[in-house]
Amino acid sequence: MSDSLTAAREHVLALGRAARAAVPVLAALTTETKNAALAAMADELLAQRDAIFAANQLDLDAAEANGVTGAMLNRLKVDEKRLQGMVDGLHALIALPDPVGGVVDGWRRPNGLDIRRVRVPLGVIGIIYESRPNVTADAAGLCLKSGNVCILRGGREAINSNQAITAALRTGCVAAGVPAEAINLITNTTRDSALALMQAEGFVDCLIPRGGHGLVQNMIANAKVPYIVDGAGVCHTYLHSAADPAMATRIAVNAKCSYPAVCNAMETLLVDAALVDGYLPGLLDELRASGVELRGDERTRAVAPEMAAATEEDWDTEYNDMVLSVRVVDGLDDALAHIAAHGSGHSEAIVTGDQRAARRFTHEVDAAAVYVNASTRFTDGGEFGFGAEIGISTQKLHARGPLGLVELTSVKYIIEGDGQVR
Amino acid sequence: MSDSLTAAREHVLALGRAARAAVPVLAALTTETKNAALAAMADELLAQRDAIFAANQLDLDAAEANGVTGAMLNRLKVDEKRLQGMVDGLHALIALPDPVGGVVDGWRRPNGLDIRRVRVPLGVIGIIYESRPNVTADAAGLCLKSGNVCILRGGREAINSNQAITAALRTGCVAAGVPAEAINLITNTTRDSALALMQAEGFVDCLIPRGGHGLVQNMIANAKVPYIVDGAGVCHTYLHSAADPAMATRIAVNAKCSYPAVCNAMETLLVDAALVDGYLPGLLDELRASGVELRGDERTRAVAPEMAAATEEDWDTEYNDMVLSVRVVDGLDDALAHIAAHGSGHSEAIVTGDQRAARRFTHEVDAAAVYVNASTRFTDGGEFGFGAEIGISTQKLHARGPLGLVELTSVKYIIEGDGQVR
Repeated sequence: MSDSLTAAREHVLALGRAARAAVPVLAALTTETKNAALAAMADELLAQRDAIFAANQLDLDAAEANGVTGAMLNRLKVDEKRLQGMVDGLHALIALPDPVGGVVDGWRRPNGLDIRRVRVPLGVIGIIYESRPNVTADAAGLCLKSGNVCILRGGREAINSNQAITAALRTGCVAAGVPAEAINLITNTTRDSALALMQAEGFVDCLIPRGGHGLVQNMIANAKVPYIVDGAGVCHTYLHSAADPAMATRIAVNAKCSYPAVCNAMETLLVDAALVDGYLPGLLDELRASGVELRGDERTRAVAPEMAAATEEDWDTEYNDMVLSVRVVDGLDDALAHIAAHGSGHSEAIVTGDQRAARRFTHEVDAAAVYVNASTRFTDGGEFGFGAEIGISTQKLHARGPLGLVELTSVKYIIEGDGQVR
Repeated sequence: MSDSLTAAREHVLALGRAARAAVPVLAALTTETKNAALAAMADELLAQRDAIFAANQLDLDAAEANGVTGAMLNRLKVDEKRLQGMVDGLHALIALPDPVGGVVDGWRRPNGLDIRRVRVPLGVIGIIYESRPNVTADAAGLCLKSGNVCILRGGREAINSNQAITAALRTGCVAAGVPAEAINLITNTTRDSALALMQAEGFVDCLIPRGGHGLVQNMIANAKVPYIVDGAGVCHTYLHSAADPAMATRIAVNAKCSYPAVCNAMETLLVDAALVDGYLPGLLDELRASGVELRGDERTRAVAPEMAAATEEDWDTEYNDMVLSVRVVDGLDDALAHIAAHGSGHSEAIVTGDQRAARRFTHEVDAAAVYVNASTRFTDGGEFGFGAEIGISTQKLHARGPLGLVELTSVKYIIEGDGQVR
């Protein structure tokens, strides 16, 4: 093992031990105490704003010196508005119901045993994320409200910001009687520290990656702790032959254009062959007018020859940009087959007025979120009404779709009897 | 990569591709069809009994030639009674509710979107198990009823039995219109094939190990597919100062003696210091009379000097045998600390008439099943009323405790609108 990996591992395991020791304390906190801590964390973010802005300026200066510009630099920035966003996020968590202690179900057995399944925190949640420093406050707040200890591993480029934000959050915890070890920041930002967190067996109950494809693949290859895959969104919208034309255009334009950089944006538009004549050219004009770069299959290009041809690779690409691949399909079966072959299991939509088509689509598409007559852009913890989210799961185990407070819990069975034996 | 591993990987991936192709078919089966298949599978087990017994005899002969005797040989045996057990197990599944399609919850958003969270199969479930051939039928039945395709990897010592049983089950499937590829048996029983299944990324949605500590550790170290830890049971029973003495003895004897080889049996008895005089010696006599070998801490041995001394290792040992470690504790805090340090998160019990002690114990013990005044032996899918189980999870992600049909499902969100955009 390299010296760097050894050092990273020692650092992460020291935090892991501190985190593990705080687990029973966090699990036993009342909702009142957790809400008081969230309020105090928000207060401290405001009280320590100067230190946070100064730390952020160090990160911004370093990034600029490294030639970072544009959207990347903007993601790194913590200004008044973003600080207030973190504060508002923590206050929003206060208003949300505490999942811990909730009785999922319960029943009495024939022998008189009473069984209840009760929600409990997962324990220690590890989060690996990239440049945006506001994730530090958002993730710490979600973990605290759900009674979990967190170990945060942010990106190297945001380390000063993350340290300043974590210091404020921990001060808030302590002010409310919650141990500072509820929130732990990995300050070693080498690649080795991410690996060490992925392999901190026995110290991490759930690892959540918030980053690109490379991070997720790295995690699948190397993790020895339980994790949730927050994967790519190659999302489709299928305009069925019985679609309302105006609705189809509104949904398609929204799914692509309202926020193309996010995972729930549409990447491929599937248009029923019945809609090619009389409808498709107008839709393509509208998308182009909205600034979308179009790439089409042969039949799409037959009505819009100026379009670039889509390659096989296009059908599997998450552009995260104002680019859209378009394909003409021969009815529902063809659309379902395309989605099965190329979808990433995130969000898929059909626009149709036909009940049987809608029913088949929702039954047969295998994805976290399946839409009828709505934009895929709604796959989001806030839009689902969860109040907040820590990511979107594209795996099937434990949780699928937006990860809210409930998804950050496990259960235990409590069984009460009066002397039953077997 | 060794030639053996390459061959194992090719074999497993060929099965994986067949399994993956069957996933949408299995997911779309009606409950009626699945129940018809379960009945036909049971019928075929009986129709092919001679072939199954003959295949089993080959396994038994090979095992005896390898010097296998006693309990190990017995576990391998398929006789009339065990065959009938498999048949009864499949019939019991017919009577259980189908989890697929169940609506977990649903709500309407302020913008009019209707969101439902609906149960769907996981997809492909991999199961690695050891000598008992009846697991083949039990696991295949549970997977089929929950709409999942299974890939079974049984032990080398049972390969002939498993092949004969699988052939019967697949014939039953086909008779009911279910593809044979619903049930897939790995016939390469080298260690490499288990590794290949653990690393069949993209082909297995959930891997469940049914075996000892070595298998679980191997899986944690090597798996690249999602899995559930079916771990050890170092289960405690704490006799609190306010315990009813007769109930305490009944529960302690049952938890240790009724089936010591299983994971929900008690391994360590914690006795409150208040119960040492006047109660503990009689309890130890009773346990000894039941054939239990006792190992005690100093304070236990003070009242039973003939006992062996428990070592530090004893407190962490799952004996799976008629052996029990006994420790005197100073009240509830001491008992909770011992369980936190040495429990495996499986099943823990308190015997007490004191409501506050019971409440603290159930709140603070971190385990899949926490009992008040009942034997830990009830941690079992059948005893919980699930009808059947495929294992017992000791992890916190996805499922904890007995794994029944519901635990073999995931969810998807179905969102219906009338043109909503964001």
